[in-house]
Amino acid sequence: MTTNSQTRGEIRGRRRRGRAEAAPTPSRDVNYRQLKNPFPLMEVFPSDQIADMHETALRMLEELGMKVLLPEARRIYAHGGARVDEDSEMVYIGRDMVEAALATAPKSILCYAGARHRDFTLELGSLVFQPGAGAPNATDLVRGRRPASGQDYLEFLKLTHHFDVFQMISPQVEPQDVPTNVRHYFTTQAQIELTDKFPFFFSRGTPQVMDCFEMLSIARGLSDDEFRSTAHSYTIINTNSPRTLDIPMAQGLIDFARYGQVSIVTPFTLMGAMAPITVAGAITLSHAEVLAALVLTQMTNPGAPVCYGTFTSNVDMKSGAPAFGTPSHFQASLAAGQLARHLGLPWRSAAGSASNLNDVQAANENQFGLWGCLMAGATVVIHSAGWLEGGLSVSFEKMICDAEVLNMVAELCAGAQAGEAEIGYDTALREVDPSGHFFATSQTMERYNTAFYEPHVHDYANFGTWTERGSVDANHRATGIWQNILNTFEPPKQNPDRVGALQDFIARRTEEGGAPPES
Amino acid sequence: MTTNSQTRGEIRGRRRRGRAEAAPTPSRDVNYRQLKNPFPLMEVFPSDQIADMHETALRMLEELGMKVLLPEARRIYAHGGARVDEDSEMVYIGRDMVEAALATAPKSILCYAGARHRDFTLELGSLVFQPGAGAPNATDLVRGRRPASGQDYLEFLKLTHHFDVFQMISPQVEPQDVPTNVRHYFTTQAQIELTDKFPFFFSRGTPQVMDCFEMLSIARGLSDDEFRSTAHSYTIINTNSPRTLDIPMAQGLIDFARYGQVSIVTPFTLMGAMAPITVAGAITLSHAEVLAALVLTQMTNPGAPVCYGTFTSNVDMKSGAPAFGTPSHFQASLAAGQLARHLGLPWRSAAGSASNLNDVQAANENQFGLWGCLMAGATVVIHSAGWLEGGLSVSFEKMICDAEVLNMVAELCAGAQAGEAEIGYDTALREVDPSGHFFATSQTMERYNTAFYEPHVHDYANFGTWTERGSVDANHRATGIWQNILNTFEPPKQNPDRVGALQDFIARRTEEGGAPPES
Repeated sequence: MTTNSQTRGEIRGRRRRGRAEAAPTPSRDVNYRQLKNPFPLMEVFPSDQIADMHETALRMLEELGMKVLLPEARRIYAHGGARVDEDSEMVYIGRDMVEAALATAPKSILCYAGARHRDFTLELGSLVFQPGAGAPNATDLVRGRRPASGQDYLEFLKLTHHFDVFQMISPQVEPQDVPTNVRHYFTTQAQIELTDKFPFFFSRGTPQVMDCFEMLSIARGLSDDEFRSTAHSYTIINTNSPRTLDIPMAQGLIDFARYGQVSIVTPFTLMGAMAPITVAGAITLSHAEVLAALVLTQMTNPGAPVCYGTFTSNVDMKSGAPAFGTPSHFQASLAAGQLARHLGLPWRSAAGSASNLNDVQAANENQFGLWGCLMAGATVVIHSAGWLEGGLSVSFEKMICDAEVLNMVAELCAGAQAGEAEIGYDTALREVDPSGHFFATSQTMERYNTAFYEPHVHDYANFGTWTERGSVDANHRATGIWQNILNTFEPPKQNPDRVGALQDFIARRTEEGGAPPES
Repeated sequence: MTTNSQTRGEIRGRRRRGRAEAAPTPSRDVNYRQLKNPFPLMEVFPSDQIADMHETALRMLEELGMKVLLPEARRIYAHGGARVDEDSEMVYIGRDMVEAALATAPKSILCYAGARHRDFTLELGSLVFQPGAGAPNATDLVRGRRPASGQDYLEFLKLTHHFDVFQMISPQVEPQDVPTNVRHYFTTQAQIELTDKFPFFFSRGTPQVMDCFEMLSIARGLSDDEFRSTAHSYTIINTNSPRTLDIPMAQGLIDFARYGQVSIVTPFTLMGAMAPITVAGAITLSHAEVLAALVLTQMTNPGAPVCYGTFTSNVDMKSGAPAFGTPSHFQASLAAGQLARHLGLPWRSAAGSASNLNDVQAANENQFGLWGCLMAGATVVIHSAGWLEGGLSVSFEKMICDAEVLNMVAELCAGAQAGEAEIGYDTALREVDPSGHFFATSQTMERYNTAFYEPHVHDYANFGTWTERGSVDANHRATGIWQNILNTFEPPKQNPDRVGALQDFIARRTEEGGAPPES
């Protein structure tokens, strides 16, 4: 490719000349920490059908009801006016209660991280990414696929901290070698000491949640009132579709609401299995379950921060296996977005892949699902990087590869201009003769250091050079990248007194036996 | 995953019951042959800046001019009122001539294929895909990367014919083992005998183009008037950016315009190299070059079908290597779409990848670029499958993998409904108890055979099953898929008389020495 070698020569020459007037290393001023969704919103259903879906969900809550396994939750629903049948544990919620809850649920949630430049706001129009979460297994090309360990948890946490485009911490893998009664100390301490991003706590019973809240208050130096006054942490609430709310999830909704912390309510439903086979039916079911959970949070503490959520894809009807990044998954995100806007609430959706390794299928499914979320106007996109096997594993290499795509999306959030300087009639277009080149125009000289996004894993070398370098594909290049990030990782500065107090708390609670998870 | 095995059992049972009432093999009635773009359009620049870019392009054509190497083209421009300097071969085109050309260029082009169900219309809002085109090399996992041969050309043609989502034939690879003076007989005969889709002819000089037009007229049984009266074929015109129109390209514009066939005008520009470093500057240059070519077609034959086009990405400023599927490539597509709508013309954009093999980078770049085209409202998306190394090779496996993504996009074109039947309060939601499943609801029974898109290369098997089957990634699964398509390929029915006449024509012209390409 003569053009390339020409270009290379030109650019080296220009680069040398350019050194004097421009920074030697490209520095691009793009803020990936607080993003606004720049993409136009897509609708899959006309608005009257969206209204019908909302109406049907209200009718479901009134006539079909939710099964709620936690007695305290049933008491709160009953006290709020819901009809409760204690024998069947069924709760029937009136539309007036839903409307009251929607009136108090905040439309905008300021999320306080460990440092002010990490704060962000959850509201319609903002865009937040989380890496793939909740997997029992970790996998990479060096160590293979294995049950996830504490070390895997820590390493994923460092990778999440490294990329600004992940604004929230997610529980990427389950540290299975840490005993369950003290696992929440391990994961909370790690989130406090290795990152200053917005942390996640599992809802596995009140004792664990109270421990986590106290640890975070110690680490942030907050009084009980100060902690309750703002969102410092979040949890994910998965209803048990269809129409069931289990004990730890109900406790989580109550605990996080009481303490003013964020619940992201996400029914995880598969069309044709635990949800109707149609997008409309599955999302109507999901919508009803979110509303039921939202009512519980507002009955517990009016104004408590709660985020609408959905994760709906389809099963393969030949095998029954879950599928992700499919057209139905895409349409489900669009429908959920329309319903979230119908309510005016911030909401989360999900990308993801069913592939068993970081291959072309994994890339195509993940990005296809991602664009569904982006065009649906999702506020939070979870499982946006690293998630494989429908959530049974998270891949180190896939996290690196997906972060490239998310960075490119973040670049698009910054937009572009076409003013006189960018069009450049005098500084570029008129400077170059027919069949000439633009390597050295005034406009190029001004901008060559910062014009374009520079990838971390994508490789633009031509076939010859790439072959000389060993013909390494993106998946294998990603291994060296995550290894380098881990080898050079530096955690954010800590307050030593608070760290000490945190460690004392953990030592004491561990001695007391910790807190086993609720089931 | 108990859910899965449960589901599998359930579904086998249901499938057995289902056999009686439903077709044994799922048949989904989705038409991929005539698509409308369902995606909302994204704008990268405000409309006043788009107007400024158009104004700047008009100023360029008036003040800076185009270098036109073909004397006949300069005569046509001069006869149409343009100021021509024969010594410098420069042509200066007034805005009045551009406005006159835009007034006669058709906004809608009916493209006649070899069979009526293959016809489609090029206009704003319609969506047409072409596989990757113009590569000197072919690559697959069985035979490796090699200079493309006639066999490669024929095999790619069969794969293109196989997938309905490719509505147009593209010249995927150059059959380098076929002599250049008879190569156009080989490629045209193949496009006539192996497919009934809309064919492509290179603009490599008037003699070759006249041969191709005559061959197609013979094959379609068309008189000269009938052939000229409708679009039966197309060519791609690449200007030599910046601001140069070479001899074969100028001849192609004139020949296709005279015969009422489609020219897709596509400046191929790389920001920072042969185009300005900014999206606004690069697209302004590209826009000016398209307008110059468009003026030539309309001066030659007012009303001649011409399609606006662009293919603008950026170079890597560190190495000078071309990059594709980048944020700047995405924004360039958006800007070109705004300018095409400013003119009201159908237009083509391009996806593509710089990767050297069918890996995760190739998948992510190609799909990222694809979404740029879709949200830009491109009428034709070229290089949408198989294109690697920035166009230096086309991959058999990548073509299969990308076709999966295009099929899923085509599924989204069909949309979805949320009527009473789809919401299914009585046929699904009310039929299932809390924590139950929807495998056997009335709604599921009606739809399980046709509810979801069924992938050809994506694999939903869980890790255990996938491992038992040999842990084959999507790239290697794709090999078996293209081999099977080729092994079972059946060309559409032919009229034996016309085939005979075509072969006689080729034999005679070959004996006469064929037609060497113009350069």
